[in-house]
Amino acid sequence: MTVPSHIIEMLKKLRARYEAEPIQEQMLPSDAEFTTLRPVRKASEASVEKYWSRLSETASADDRAALADPLTMEAPDRYNANIENFIGTVKVPVGIIGPLRINGLNAHRDFHVPMATTEAALVASYARGAYAATKAGGISTALLYEGVIRTPAFVFDTLLDAGLFVEWVVREIDALKVAAESTTGHGQLVSVEPVIDNNIVFLICRYTTGDAAGQNMVTIATNALCEDIVARCPVAMKTWYIEGNFSGDKKASFLGLVTGRGRKVSASVVLPADVVQSTLGTSVQAMLDYGQVANLGSHLSGQLGAQAHFANGLAAFYIATGQDAACVAESAIGITRMEPRGDDLFCSVTMPNILVGSVGGGTGLPSQSAGLNILGLKGAGKGAALAEVAAAVCLCGEISIVAAIAAGHFTRAHENLARQR
Amino acid sequence: MTVPSHIIEMLKKLRARYEAEPIQEQMLPSDAEFTTLRPVRKASEASVEKYWSRLSETASADDRAALADPLTMEAPDRYNANIENFIGTVKVPVGIIGPLRINGLNAHRDFHVPMATTEAALVASYARGAYAATKAGGISTALLYEGVIRTPAFVFDTLLDAGLFVEWVVREIDALKVAAESTTGHGQLVSVEPVIDNNIVFLICRYTTGDAAGQNMVTIATNALCEDIVARCPVAMKTWYIEGNFSGDKKASFLGLVTGRGRKVSASVVLPADVVQSTLGTSVQAMLDYGQVANLGSHLSGQLGAQAHFANGLAAFYIATGQDAACVAESAIGITRMEPRGDDLFCSVTMPNILVGSVGGGTGLPSQSAGLNILGLKGAGKGAALAEVAAAVCLCGEISIVAAIAAGHFTRAHENLARQR
Amino acid sequence: MTVPSHIIEMLKKLRARYEAEPIQEQMLPSDAEFTTLRPVRKASEASVEKYWSRLSETASADDRAALADPLTMEAPDRYNANIENFIGTVKVPVGIIGPLRINGLNAHRDFHVPMATTEAALVASYARGAYAATKAGGISTALLYEGVIRTPAFVFDTLLDAGLFVEWVVREIDALKVAAESTTGHGQLVSVEPVIDNNIVFLICRYTTGDAAGQNMVTIATNALCEDIVARCPVAMKTWYIEGNFSGDKKASFLGLVTGRGRKVSASVVLPADVVQSTLGTSVQAMLDYGQVANLGSHLSGQLGAQAHFANGLAAFYIATGQDAACVAESAIGITRMEPRGDDLFCSVTMPNILVGSVGGGTGLPSQSAGLNILGLKGAGKGAALAEVAAAVCLCGEISIVAAIAAGHFTRAHENLARQR
Amino acid sequence: MTVPSHIIEMLKKLRARYEAEPIQEQMLPSDAEFTTLRPVRKASEASVEKYWSRLSETASADDRAALADPLTMEAPDRYNANIENFIGTVKVPVGIIGPLRINGLNAHRDFHVPMATTEAALVASYARGAYAATKAGGISTALLYEGVIRTPAFVFDTLLDAGLFVEWVVREIDALKVAAESTTGHGQLVSVEPVIDNNIVFLICRYTTGDAAGQNMVTIATNALCEDIVARCPVAMKTWYIEGNFSGDKKASFLGLVTGRGRKVSASVVLPADVVQSTLGTSVQAMLDYGQVANLGSHLSGQLGAQAHFANGLAAFYIATGQDAACVAESAIGITRMEPRGDDLFCSVTMPNILVGSVGGGTGLPSQSAGLNILGLKGAGKGAALAEVAAAVCLCGEISIVAAIAAGHFTRAHENLARQR
Repeated sequence: MTVPSHIIEMLKKLRARYEAEPIQEQMLPSDAEFTTLRPVRKASEASVEKYWSRLSETASADDRAALADPLTMEAPDRYNANIENFIGTVKVPVGIIGPLRINGLNAHRDFHVPMATTEAALVASYARGAYAATKAGGISTALLYEGVIRTPAFVFDTLLDAGLFVEWVVREIDALKVAAESTTGHGQLVSVEPVIDNNIVFLICRYTTGDAAGQNMVTIATNALCEDIVARCPVAMKTWYIEGNFSGDKKASFLGLVTGRGRKVSASVVLPADVVQSTLGTSVQAMLDYGQVANLGSHLSGQLGAQAHFANGLAAFYIATGQDAACVAESAIGITRMEPRGDDLFCSVTMPNILVGSVGGGTGLPSQSAGLNILGLKGAGKGAALAEVAAAVCLCGEISIVAAIAAGHFTRAHENLARQR
Repeated sequence: MTVPSHIIEMLKKLRARYEAEPIQEQMLPSDAEFTTLRPVRKASEASVEKYWSRLSETASADDRAALADPLTMEAPDRYNANIENFIGTVKVPVGIIGPLRINGLNAHRDFHVPMATTEAALVASYARGAYAATKAGGISTALLYEGVIRTPAFVFDTLLDAGLFVEWVVREIDALKVAAESTTGHGQLVSVEPVIDNNIVFLICRYTTGDAAGQNMVTIATNALCEDIVARCPVAMKTWYIEGNFSGDKKASFLGLVTGRGRKVSASVVLPADVVQSTLGTSVQAMLDYGQVANLGSHLSGQLGAQAHFANGLAAFYIATGQDAACVAESAIGITRMEPRGDDLFCSVTMPNILVGSVGGGTGLPSQSAGLNILGLKGAGKGAALAEVAAAVCLCGEISIVAAIAAGHFTRAHENLARQR
Repeated sequence: MTVPSHIIEMLKKLRARYEAEPIQEQMLPSDAEFTTLRPVRKASEASVEKYWSRLSETASADDRAALADPLTMEAPDRYNANIENFIGTVKVPVGIIGPLRINGLNAHRDFHVPMATTEAALVASYARGAYAATKAGGISTALLYEGVIRTPAFVFDTLLDAGLFVEWVVREIDALKVAAESTTGHGQLVSVEPVIDNNIVFLICRYTTGDAAGQNMVTIATNALCEDIVARCPVAMKTWYIEGNFSGDKKASFLGLVTGRGRKVSASVVLPADVVQSTLGTSVQAMLDYGQVANLGSHLSGQLGAQAHFANGLAAFYIATGQDAACVAESAIGITRMEPRGDDLFCSVTMPNILVGSVGGGTGLPSQSAGLNILGLKGAGKGAALAEVAAAVCLCGEISIVAAIAAGHFTRAHENLARQR
Repeated sequence: MTVPSHIIEMLKKLRARYEAEPIQEQMLPSDAEFTTLRPVRKASEASVEKYWSRLSETASADDRAALADPLTMEAPDRYNANIENFIGTVKVPVGIIGPLRINGLNAHRDFHVPMATTEAALVASYARGAYAATKAGGISTALLYEGVIRTPAFVFDTLLDAGLFVEWVVREIDALKVAAESTTGHGQLVSVEPVIDNNIVFLICRYTTGDAAGQNMVTIATNALCEDIVARCPVAMKTWYIEGNFSGDKKASFLGLVTGRGRKVSASVVLPADVVQSTLGTSVQAMLDYGQVANLGSHLSGQLGAQAHFANGLAAFYIATGQDAACVAESAIGITRMEPRGDDLFCSVTMPNILVGSVGGGTGLPSQSAGLNILGLKGAGKGAALAEVAAAVCLCGEISIVAAIAAGHFTRAHENLARQR
């Protein structure tokens, strides 16, 4: 049997389905009538009502009550800057961990951290890691670098024109910087690096973005930069695009791993042997042994960097604090290290792509704002600390999961918490 | 100046900070006293109250009201199977798009799709894509493959022992399958593939998981498989781990791209030239031209596959329907293609790692359940259709963003929707 | 200065060049006359003479003598099956290392290994590693897997047709296997795995190839398989290609890392602490410490797997034994591990993509044949052993370079051997 | 059958082998006596003789004659700067292609290009591509960037120390540049970029290397830089390494793809429709259609960039001109593009990691020197042109193979040339 059994298994399933229904027609386009939803930018009680009347075929009154609850409907316009076609809010449960002691360059005290998730065992696991880290004296953190990227692309007829374009851009860089920064009070264009692929030029534009995550800020600034180029550059251009799908926006990329995107933070702690034993129920050596296997697994499966589950901590933290949850895709890469320090265990994470803001995005919504307030990190001047807390939280998660797998507790935790309640 | 300016810029910032405070001490561990939060698995009004009293230093009564609102506090135990240390719920706004016509193997009708996000313009953009696709007759979809992976690792003394172990596993595979499947009524072990790195063996265990996303299911089944191995295998084993960090769980990996993890779905539509013009405000040729540049960008920046922003659609869809938002990290990879078909535009997405369930996880919570009900896809027998809808939604997003960038609308959309309200 | 200095530096150089010459014209196409070389498949003294007369404008009589030397010109037709447009031979110096003791599944004795390179210090370094490994009792090796891949691609109108095609292929797999294997006495089709991207299907066809490297063998067999498909498959096909650029032929790929291509071999040795000290001039701990940093470097720079310089050993071994040197691109990936074993050092390499043959390709040429004879591995029944030797040689190189860098000898070795002679 | 058939097939083979021999003992270390070869740095007739007497057990007099032929033995010391333990030379057949017209920034005329390979059909295929390109008016090329990297690593106790170290390095950068450049008359340190992973700092040191490939040059220069750091830096350092396995030396890496290593060259040509038809036997549309599938294959199999077989051209070119063949591993990545230009076909390659020199390495050896002389590119001032020729040659190969696969000729070419002579 030369074809793998799982393929054959799958085909059997499909075939059963084919036979039940006339598959050919089912997958063809259909020109049946339809009435599209009218777009609504400014939500009101009436607009929400109208949408729900359209949804009544599938959704019940209870469903409507669950999303368009009284608190949400008190002021649906509160969400106008964050969503279109508003029909209510989904309630994601929030758990709290802490105190998590952080001895950071920007974050420097004990924090209670809200985490929003529907996955059992997650909060408990991060809480355990936080407890171990705090018992060990807390986590050292440093924001190492900032640089949100936009990468517009410019298309020319020839390689020569592409080269002449780069020369012009470099010569005009100061004026272009002024154009870009004219659109923002907080962002600064800190680097422009051209990448040429024959007749196409990408400009890697890196910005600091103050306390905001800054994805819109850099788009608008880069647009101004591009329009200034287009207005003044003498080299004939075929076309240009605000983004050449090069920046790694909303996706894992080696560019992000190598050069960073957003905020790059490193966080570490040395766990004394007795803390490992008493709080994590395993030994330093067992964690190191597993670390070697986990590192091998990361290589052989083609991951970007090596880590266990940054995504769990990031998603829960991003949702609870009004960050862009889609950025988990790009943020959840980096390096976790565990090494012996005498009898103790050095643990670190270095995360090159954290995208968080203490202002902007979803941070102003009531419950998200509450999440930031629990941290004490809402508003101006708190962006860097917020990024350091995000990394520290991820370190807690790495410590806890590595300990659990090393000790053989991992499955049991999930059985207990998710299944058997 | 041999050091890049953005590095120097960053150092200046750091130095300013150093000078203001005695940095050395700030980053040292501290043994100040602390009282950790008492873990709570079964939430009650009292437990929530207790936590909030601890949080009162940073959080206000308004913050508490925003998270622990009356509706949430009606029955805090509702969340017991999904979270620990519960303090309330974060409200993520939900917008609706549709109808989205899907002509799929498993999903086959017009859908209204709830999307939860705090990022302005996202819902509007996906709605536009859905409108174009539906006008074109709808999106063809097919679930091509299922296979959630767990990859336990086994450590031996020598390469020879590793080889003998693999031989034993292959010989005993039927019994091991029975052991694994004894833990679940829905999961099936469809493939076991050994990967040897000298003295370490990973077993890639692939499962179908019925209508659940299945991450816990496969962990528990694999644990049973491992325990059966450990009980009976005569080859001396140094140690084993339930997961060798090989499966790609919660992270982007080339293993996932190449072989799939979770559900693999392909979705496509041919957009007639006039639909492109009238609904997307651009031309087929403009979208194709941009597609070539975007593909180049994906290669040069080292992405896994080539796509624009799967993560946006996935995160909004996962949160609105009670899926695991952390899985966005692994799901947001794959391929978007745009090609000419005569004068028209063929568009497809193929997504190898969709992790969704119509049962289990967060799907039973009230507002998440409402999200599934809007789709008409809650409960048994709906998992495959749910995965097809997820892919179709992502295709809508790809169509819309490519059109927006090709037409030069992208920045304007974000300016209008996020900033100028 | 927002543009990196190295970019500016580079532009200055280019500008200097622009100014010297009228750059625009220089890069335009030119329609000046030219006479192309007449292709020659069967070399003769006359054909070689004719080519050299054409080359006399740039090349001297000495140059001709160096390539078209008397030994080469004795029988230029000897090279007919290996090259076209023959003008002579380039002489690559060969050094010898050994004895290298191998305790392998297929290779099992002490070997002297020829290595062809022009890079000083390379042979000395591998010789040192071989000495250490042999002193430690020799290297254990095992060929773990064979599977040279061809991946034809088939293009359909729709996703549905692609699915129907896969179903047909799976049903007809036995007949297709017969078709493929009818072309070869040595190759066997061991697996066919379909990968669907909407309307395009790749078939990953894996073969064992006997004692040959087998790249041509699998091309021809797969062509027969495809022609059988085309002749008999009822699903309407738009077009097909013998290779969809999916197989990883002649290039590094994660597919190769994850699933193997060619022969997968693992090799290991435990170096006693005193051998490390006496033969490598460093300590086990120093090598382990460097190993951790080297592993980090491999992650952060986005390598495929983690290793130091497989390519050096492979290129030298491939050239000396008549293998395809271009395959270094795909073979030079994999994993090197160094771990403590008590006071001693466990070292291993696992290389998933070794492409070697003891027959075919360049193995029959006089000096390449001599290389294989030195190893005692020419001809039928020796392919597996040859692959094991290749991996063992690479392990020697890894041991030596890690020791050199750990001890701080690396630079000195290159200074001495390359520069100061 | 849950285990893939190719695994079972493989195990059967292994088992057959186990049964034949007592496998356990065979793979154990052995302490049998052995006499290692005495290392020889300066070859002489006597040293070569001595080695061959040791090899006589496996190798015949004919083998010896094939490697240690009279021409080689005329002056074995000629190879002293390039190899140790010299026993002769392997003769790699060289074919010639051309004229290849290049309209480059640095290379600007018609070239005849020597290619050394043992793979049939390779030279013929590149010759065909060269003919098509030259008929089209020639290939435009530009050296876009130079920057050979060394990346020393420095290990500290804490993240804070790592930060202080970076600050010191940046402050001292001018002095460090002087230290580095004091070791070389040709190399220039053009950029130093620190990358921090918690307590470990990598310094990405980029150099221009004049006309040499420069790998040794940058090692020696970086060593001087490091020693200056160690001598003067006040931050306590645990250890340092000349190379942190970060530079991508001798291996494919995303760092190299994203930022370049060695010389980055782009080359392009527009092939008129009639040239495609008459010289390549296919159509522009057929090549474009295949290009889309090949691009998809490159994504799905996890390649670095997208190209067909750079490695073939590079290996043949590197060997024929005395370059380091091991560098094929890092050089064989990049981007091939094929796009419509009206009715014609735009083709380009952009190769970020070409490592060639017109001086140094193996370029001074007689037959390698002859290869460079055929090109007219030996010696000072020719390095940049040599890199442009390398890229142009690869473009010829891409054109020819894409045409062959698009036209269905690929298999036939290999059947004819390799098998049926």
